[in-house]
Amino acid sequence: MPSPVRPVLAVTTGEPAGIGPEISIRAAWALREVANCVLVGDAAFLALTASSLDPAIRLSAISIQALRNGGLPDFGRDRIAVVDVPLAAHVVPGVLNAENGRAVLATLDLALEGVRSGWFDAIVTAPLQKSTINDAGVAFSGHTEYLAEKTGTPKVVMMLAGEPGALQPSLRVALATTHLPLKDVPAAITRESLGQVLDILQADLRSKFGIAAPRILVAGLNPHAGENGYLGREEIDVIEPALHAARERGIDARGPYPADTLFQPKYLRDADCVLAMYHDQGLPVLKHATFGRGVNITLGLPLIRTSVDHGTALDIAARGLGLADSGSMEEAIRVAMHMVAARRSASPH
Amino acid sequence: MPSPVRPVLAVTTGEPAGIGPEISIRAAWALREVANCVLVGDAAFLALTASSLDPAIRLSAISIQALRNGGLPDFGRDRIAVVDVPLAAHVVPGVLNAENGRAVLATLDLALEGVRSGWFDAIVTAPLQKSTINDAGVAFSGHTEYLAEKTGTPKVVMMLAGEPGALQPSLRVALATTHLPLKDVPAAITRESLGQVLDILQADLRSKFGIAAPRILVAGLNPHAGENGYLGREEIDVIEPALHAARERGIDARGPYPADTLFQPKYLRDADCVLAMYHDQGLPVLKHATFGRGVNITLGLPLIRTSVDHGTALDIAARGLGLADSGSMEEAIRVAMHMVAARRSASPH
Repeated sequence: MPSPVRPVLAVTTGEPAGIGPEISIRAAWALREVANCVLVGDAAFLALTASSLDPAIRLSAISIQALRNGGLPDFGRDRIAVVDVPLAAHVVPGVLNAENGRAVLATLDLALEGVRSGWFDAIVTAPLQKSTINDAGVAFSGHTEYLAEKTGTPKVVMMLAGEPGALQPSLRVALATTHLPLKDVPAAITRESLGQVLDILQADLRSKFGIAAPRILVAGLNPHAGENGYLGREEIDVIEPALHAARERGIDARGPYPADTLFQPKYLRDADCVLAMYHDQGLPVLKHATFGRGVNITLGLPLIRTSVDHGTALDIAARGLGLADSGSMEEAIRVAMHMVAARRSASPH
Repeated sequence: MPSPVRPVLAVTTGEPAGIGPEISIRAAWALREVANCVLVGDAAFLALTASSLDPAIRLSAISIQALRNGGLPDFGRDRIAVVDVPLAAHVVPGVLNAENGRAVLATLDLALEGVRSGWFDAIVTAPLQKSTINDAGVAFSGHTEYLAEKTGTPKVVMMLAGEPGALQPSLRVALATTHLPLKDVPAAITRESLGQVLDILQADLRSKFGIAAPRILVAGLNPHAGENGYLGREEIDVIEPALHAARERGIDARGPYPADTLFQPKYLRDADCVLAMYHDQGLPVLKHATFGRGVNITLGLPLIRTSVDHGTALDIAARGLGLADSGSMEEAIRVAMHMVAARRSASPH
């Protein structure tokens, strides 16, 4: 029996004026023995960045044309492969330049092409700056929305995951709503939308995490999960019916529980995932517990995509190389590796 | 120089059919060497409960009349003092009985009287059941509201505090709003209300926690603290002006920051308190980090009052003695002790 093929991860290096190139290089280099990362970005700029960081780092570049003609060669474990997607303009760290907006977007397109072509098993994305792409004349509202549109995905679910300190299980928090003003959250949660989120959670926890029977803890919307209607009726009118219907479809969705109760470690131990109703109900715990090393995972896509849980950090990039924390990027690569392995065992081929 | 007088804490034992009597006895007994706890409740019922829990536990009762006539005697460190506030009806664990509602309320009145009379330095409250008191014919919306009304306090602030695991600082989270349906939260936060909350925080962190120059981290209302108005305008219209005005009054109130950023341990290290805008933005982190051993502290009152962060747990009480977790009650006693000591050093007399 041949040994299993080592997963290949496309790492798009993000906004070149931010910390994306540095953390992509450092994480890929640190993990080169365990993860086959292929950086996607301007090869010359990445080579310059790498040599400034550490002369020991070795890169080998391949052009898009060569990749399309011959596929991805095995560059070995002593160097990082780079697919060259050239920038249009010189990069000044910390200074955005709309001339490079289309090149950033082209790294995403190449990563998607590579997944379709079988070169890559998953995509890991460094942060980009939405405004740069919009200023380049391309309407763009974010990585997640772009990947959903390009893959014809009607709905995606944002999940953050991480490894808390000792004695605590790994934590996965999915969100029923994401970047909405707080006042718009209650109306955005409907039986239909919750049902779709639970279907996506169930499907992806099985197919991408290898959990045969996922146990999902669902938070209420209101404090104390509404306290039988005294503190809000959304639990009674919306969430409970949605959970009831989901259970009838075979989804082990428990709740709604008070958010301050269900995040206690003793309850988390018996769950594979928490579904929070909104951003600040779920993410403060996740980021507190993982010390900022959370990984952002987009569920619902027909591919595996992880990313860091922070932004471009232009201010850090402007101060020079070597100051950024590549921890979240390393975690994003590790989680993508685990997900590729779990998908293989969930659906052997 | 005489040694400082050991603080005396009134521990009201709460709903008799719940776990309050058990956790009050167990915590007072476990801490008898360090804390001088005086239980307030039905002495005979507490004696029966104590002897069922552990025959080694010794109680000594005093009547309200004797207390009023002669003050509180020193019962020594080998027993727990009880002020006898008789119940009206037999207690069936797990079964509420409105006949006992007025007696539960009478324990609060006695504790307040005792603080005014100088018998007690602070009040620690076990959980009670609001419905039992209302069913007894007394309009009652909660411990906190009752203590505020009886002391003529126009506004109080709820804070939860606890000791997280190793390497993390102690965590204090105050709430700008408490038990409101989520949809009512945005309108409940005004410049005036936030200003009052910050004034109370500043005053009580100084006078009851002994922190000369409290550093307060303030969360935004919306995800990413509104992202410059793209995700909600309350930060710009309400929170920032309130913080600006507070800083002009000499309060070190920083923010508004994204809630998922500010709860990261590296930011908490430089703060004495977090002010969250609402219940489920602040308390999930607190209860996760403290493993359910959080302590509820009412700020703004002219007295020190702490309580457990859980309810009466009628279901546990119904299953018998010895099953309840007295950890939160022990923490509530410890925190009250520290606060009494801090108040003494903040205003020596």
